Amino acid sequence: MVIPMNSSISKILVIYYSKTGNTKKLAEEIIKGVKEVKDIKYVLKTTSEVTKEDFLTSDGIIAGSPVYFGTMVADLKHVFDKFVGIRKKIGDKVGAAFATSGDESGGKETTMMSIIQAMLIYGMIIVGDPLDASGHYGVACKGSPDKETGINAAKLGKRVALLVKKLKN
Amino acid sequence: MVIPMNSSISKILVIYYSKTGNTKKLAEEIIKGVKEVKDIKYVLKTTSEVTKEDFLTSDGIIAGSPVYFGTMVADLKHVFDKFVGIRKKIGDKVGAAFATSGDESGGKETTMMSIIQAMLIYGMIIVGDPLDASGHYGVACKGSPDKETGINAAKLGKRVALLVKKLKN
Amino acid sequence: MVIPMNSSISKILVIYYSKTGNTKKLAEEIIKGVKEVKDIKYVLKTTSEVTKEDFLTSDGIIAGSPVYFGTMVADLKHVFDKFVGIRKKIGDKVGAAFATSGDESGGKETTMMSIIQAMLIYGMIIVGDPLDASGHYGVACKGSPDKETGINAAKLGKRVALLVKKLKN
Amino acid sequence: MVIPMNSSISKILVIYYSKTGNTKKLAEEIIKGVKEVKDIKYVLKTTSEVTKEDFLTSDGIIAGSPVYFGTMVADLKHVFDKFVGIRKKIGDKVGAAFATSGDESGGKETTMMSIIQAMLIYGMIIVGDPLDASGHYGVACKGSPDKETGINAAKLGKRVALLVKKLKN
Repeated sequence: MVIPMNSSISKILVIYYSKTGNTKKLAEEIIKGVKEVKDIKYVLKTTSEVTKEDFLTSDGIIAGSPVYFGTMVADLKHVFDKFVGIRKKIGDKVGAAFATSGDESGGKETTMMSIIQAMLIYGMIIVGDPLDASGHYGVACKGSPDKETGINAAKLGKRVALLVKKLKN
Repeated sequence: MVIPMNSSISKILVIYYSKTGNTKKLAEEIIKGVKEVKDIKYVLKTTSEVTKEDFLTSDGIIAGSPVYFGTMVADLKHVFDKFVGIRKKIGDKVGAAFATSGDESGGKETTMMSIIQAMLIYGMIIVGDPLDASGHYGVACKGSPDKETGINAAKLGKRVALLVKKLKN
Repeated sequence: MVIPMNSSISKILVIYYSKTGNTKKLAEEIIKGVKEVKDIKYVLKTTSEVTKEDFLTSDGIIAGSPVYFGTMVADLKHVFDKFVGIRKKIGDKVGAAFATSGDESGGKETTMMSIIQAMLIYGMIIVGDPLDASGHYGVACKGSPDKETGINAAKLGKRVALLVKKLKN
Repeated sequence: MVIPMNSSISKILVIYYSKTGNTKKLAEEIIKGVKEVKDIKYVLKTTSEVTKEDFLTSDGIIAGSPVYFGTMVADLKHVFDKFVGIRKKIGDKVGAAFATSGDESGGKETTMMSIIQAMLIYGMIIVGDPLDASGHYGVACKGSPDKETGINAAKLGKRVALLVKKLKN
């Protein structure tokens, strides 16, 4: 029997929907933080690319959405809805959220909370961005992420990766 | 030019998504209350039937969803998302929400709140079910609506219809 | 019997808690909009000044809070909690929310939603700020209100006042 | 210097506010699950008894509230608000929520979410009740906890205790 080389490698899935490119950019900033942690792989996928297999084989899932009417965009909600059959196998994976909006108080927070609610019902373990970032529900910005948001996004990615690693050992 | 006979007739749109039939039944109970108010028409449509025209020509919109992962089902969110272009014309219509769930504390409230959030961002005027019903975010039940839920649903329908009428005069 | 002169005068109550003065300033901007509507009186009170009588004699209530940990400050929640005995008499008054925060995505939206949830359970009719303001859950800003926020605040105050007036006639 | 015997002992704080006794009973059911895990101590305190020291010395915090107007009772919110000074030291503790209500869809979920929001802003790591319980935001019931709710409450307590233990090692 051959022990797989990557048995100790954990995987983080970052999924997003992006029309303008802002949410994609924020996803990429999060990946930078994930990469800072050793022995962690990542997969970056859009809501139309992601598969049940991606959910099942990941140890952490970070999901992002532009703000449409106060909760995650239908395209992302559709992913959570259609994967209902694997819900019972998702429990104890680590989850986190991110969002971009057109308006300052226009639904970023409630959009992140809608993602967190879905993840809680999937049985996941939830973190926001760490206290040395904004220390709130996740990473969010109006429009395209600026430098500070990028740094906070990386901190969120790193936090999820470190927690995934700690829980695996 | 002929002045239409129904110029003083207001219209309530009840939209829902239903897979098991429970949310449809709850929609029908709400309609019973709408019918109690004179000079109010109603339209009952599923999320796949509803059109922008239905939104534009209605004076009140009551939207319902089964609970999937804590917020409205993607099919209903998709309706709100894709009608974004008519958002600025929806303001001041009356809105209300309803939901059915499989689990008692499994997301009925947050599902109704997700609908209310979308309606607030559409600029709508929001009511929950009245104080002589449950007096909360809207009408909700686990599984199929029982008799009491049916009565409360009718009270919500009637409340929306009466408010629509009052605002029109 | 003397019919009171002000029988057709409606009243808007603006309540707030403010430690830094930011939420107080935002309350004052809202009042400017209320004043634009004829035959509307207003009362501006802090959470420690407000009485049950203020709630009962008002036709609209606009409540504001600084952001503390994602929902309204305990001092404002305490007001809603302790007035539970008059809940059944509040139904059909108009309600709206406002908030100020220290961090951009730090809980303004969920704080306003927490106020809106309380108001829905009081049976109130809820509006956010109008579509020609930000068109979201209410008026909110980071720190002290700037000029644009002030204008939006006035629009919220005016919207509530106009709706109160319409419902009274 | 003497190394304390309990250096590897983790502590779970269960805090609650209870007027009717229902939320207290639910807290006690949660404790039963905490006790199932070896090397875990617990402290059960009301919102008026709890101290900053309790927050600082605990590895996990499970907070419960009766439902008052859709979010946690002011007495519990006041605890989160007044401990703001130690926020930066709370990060990475494990958090979970529970609630009891008078009405079936009357705010249990949004009350638990209000607690979870506060905990996220304290930087905590959040879990709901596990997938073999209700698998949602936490443990909640209408009125006094029945047998099934008691079992689910114990499962939540055990989940938090196991996660605390895993994170400490």
